[in-house]
Amino acid sequence: MASESTVFRASTTAPVNIAVIKYWGKRDASLNLPTNSSLSVTLSQRSLRTLTTASCSAVYPAADSLTLNGKPQDIQSSKRTLACLSNLRSLRQAVEAADLTLPKLSTLPLRIVSENNFPTAAGLASSAAGFAALVRAVADLYQLPQSPRELSRIARQGSGSACRSLMGGYVAWRSGELEDGSDSLAEEVAPASHWPEMRALILVVSAEKKDVPSTEGMQTTVATSSLFATRAASVVPERMDAIETAIRDRDFPAFAEITMRDSNSFHATCLDSWPPIFYMNDVSRAAVRLVHDINRAVGRTVCAYTFDAGPNAVIYYLDEVSELVAGTFKAILGGTTGGWEGPFGQRLEKVTAPGVSLDQLDSRAVTVLKDGVARVILTSVGEGPVSVTEHLVSEKGEIIIN
Amino acid sequence: MASESTVFRASTTAPVNIAVIKYWGKRDASLNLPTNSSLSVTLSQRSLRTLTTASCSAVYPAADSLTLNGKPQDIQSSKRTLACLSNLRSLRQAVEAADLTLPKLSTLPLRIVSENNFPTAAGLASSAAGFAALVRAVADLYQLPQSPRELSRIARQGSGSACRSLMGGYVAWRSGELEDGSDSLAEEVAPASHWPEMRALILVVSAEKKDVPSTEGMQTTVATSSLFATRAASVVPERMDAIETAIRDRDFPAFAEITMRDSNSFHATCLDSWPPIFYMNDVSRAAVRLVHDINRAVGRTVCAYTFDAGPNAVIYYLDEVSELVAGTFKAILGGTTGGWEGPFGQRLEKVTAPGVSLDQLDSRAVTVLKDGVARVILTSVGEGPVSVTEHLVSEKGEIIIN
Repeated sequence: MASESTVFRASTTAPVNIAVIKYWGKRDASLNLPTNSSLSVTLSQRSLRTLTTASCSAVYPAADSLTLNGKPQDIQSSKRTLACLSNLRSLRQAVEAADLTLPKLSTLPLRIVSENNFPTAAGLASSAAGFAALVRAVADLYQLPQSPRELSRIARQGSGSACRSLMGGYVAWRSGELEDGSDSLAEEVAPASHWPEMRALILVVSAEKKDVPSTEGMQTTVATSSLFATRAASVVPERMDAIETAIRDRDFPAFAEITMRDSNSFHATCLDSWPPIFYMNDVSRAAVRLVHDINRAVGRTVCAYTFDAGPNAVIYYLDEVSELVAGTFKAILGGTTGGWEGPFGQRLEKVTAPGVSLDQLDSRAVTVLKDGVARVILTSVGEGPVSVTEHLVSEKGEIIIN
Repeated sequence: MASESTVFRASTTAPVNIAVIKYWGKRDASLNLPTNSSLSVTLSQRSLRTLTTASCSAVYPAADSLTLNGKPQDIQSSKRTLACLSNLRSLRQAVEAADLTLPKLSTLPLRIVSENNFPTAAGLASSAAGFAALVRAVADLYQLPQSPRELSRIARQGSGSACRSLMGGYVAWRSGELEDGSDSLAEEVAPASHWPEMRALILVVSAEKKDVPSTEGMQTTVATSSLFATRAASVVPERMDAIETAIRDRDFPAFAEITMRDSNSFHATCLDSWPPIFYMNDVSRAAVRLVHDINRAVGRTVCAYTFDAGPNAVIYYLDEVSELVAGTFKAILGGTTGGWEGPFGQRLEKVTAPGVSLDQLDSRAVTVLKDGVARVILTSVGEGPVSVTEHLVSEKGEIIIN
């Protein structure tokens, strides 16, 4: 039985997702409603995850609080966080109204503590995992009946792409049409188990100051690019259909070509913005070149690049061609680049020679990549958020610093 | 009176032009008909020019010959050169048919000798100046009555952008609509004297292998970019109107913004091609950044960048802001970069400090530019082809090597 000093807790981990059809452009900035649908691959939490504990208690000070990676956040100045918490509280109030025996958690202050197992600065879409974990953890704390799809509407208001991190596998975010955003939701296109062989090699490019934050960047693109409307209105809808078919059919060459073309299209609209926005640099270009060279040398499409709002390359490939793809990048990047040892590194332990002979690759691109990649993250498609018993808030309500 | 051994000669110089609305995409590859109109600034021949002598004589061997920068060319394998010469001969035949007293030059073998005063490898659109000089020199040799506009139809078949080098100042190439290309012609929008203060600072970026030759690149873009059709059909036509107005009104800020946006739009469609085409590199991006920084620091648009199918930046500005713009680049690039001495360098001789304080500029861009620019060419808007008495073929028909 709960007493006045009870600390209610729920903890979850949530994954990062990397879009293959890009979200870029809001049709409503405050609701985070996108100009076009998008689709992503959820990455394994064995490599990258956010762990979040949501707790509430009558013993806490009156204001909700949020601690990220050990640092208290100014929650009141984050409209996005406030919107998520307000939505979740409303849903809890409905639950409490339907069953008066339940504790009135909606009336208690929240203490939320969150930690990433990867550096925020690496440019790895940490806000997506962060808001997905926050929404999932509070929903669990509140024992909300809503499905991940329904919760995605809330997470979306925290960070657009966060809605896609509430599910595993291959996830579409339908742009929706309604003004209130109630139909702008994420849904699973296929679970990770449908196509579990998908691998992702992330090339973390040496830190350079990010050009333009993505919220600002996408607003600039929508307002100024004369090519963007064509992308949103016709290019992306066709690609959404095509890539869902490719995923259903486990057709990697089709999946790969659409992924690469959509990344290029997104960056093209950035370049066409005013003033122009550049996220890719010469190291990114070298990765593009090498992916095309590897595919050409192998004689079929075995790998695909995609770039978010930063220079890091994410390279998708299937486990069966690990030696050809990841093995070649390992041979290029050599022993000085860390990250090959992770949970998916086993496959490459015995690799001693590149899968594709380096003399079939552009030598300049090889040099530029070798000099420009700081570390790699070798990972895989994975599951959605998972409830865990590891808490970042003690039974007494104290924040646990790992 | 001409004898059997007479060598008929005419020599001309022709300028380079740099487009501000880009030509990219052919609707007919053999006729070099463009998908959209374009507009360029003709650059002064005091800095960059091709000198060509066209000669013909009964003493020459039967086949036409062409020597470029001291190297004999295989004229029979160049359909484009053959098309130009065939067109010019037909026009001469018409002249001869109308006046039977004229020598039958159209029946004589041609010996054409051409020299650039700048390295072909610098990526400075040498084919435009080359074909313009060839057409102008042969037309002069044949004493053709056709106007530059009419001759532009012939030069276009040699190299699309060559048609714009037949005139000085500000030149539009109207795409035309007819299938035979007879209305795809260049015309002067304004002579150099209308806006003579226009300056061009060319930053020649250290040699890197060119990504994709432009003829191949533009075919790839037309065939594969899903954004290109929008550019050709609606973006460029609007910009053509707007930039002609800006030139007419000598409105530099408008001219500059359209120029920069069109360069970005062109490179965006390259990036959106499949496989993607990258002409700009990190040095180009640094130049973009610095132009925006200078404009921001000055508080108005005083300079504009544009990039052709390569990493070189061309920066337009007006003479009155030479210290602010060229002076700042001179301060960044320092004494190790050559080219500041040319005919337009005088203006900067007394410049000792950058026009814009370097601490108002992105420091990383400053470093990247300084390390990446091999030389500069400081030049100006200029005149069209000029008849000269300096010949590259002697009175006896011998090739003169300078």
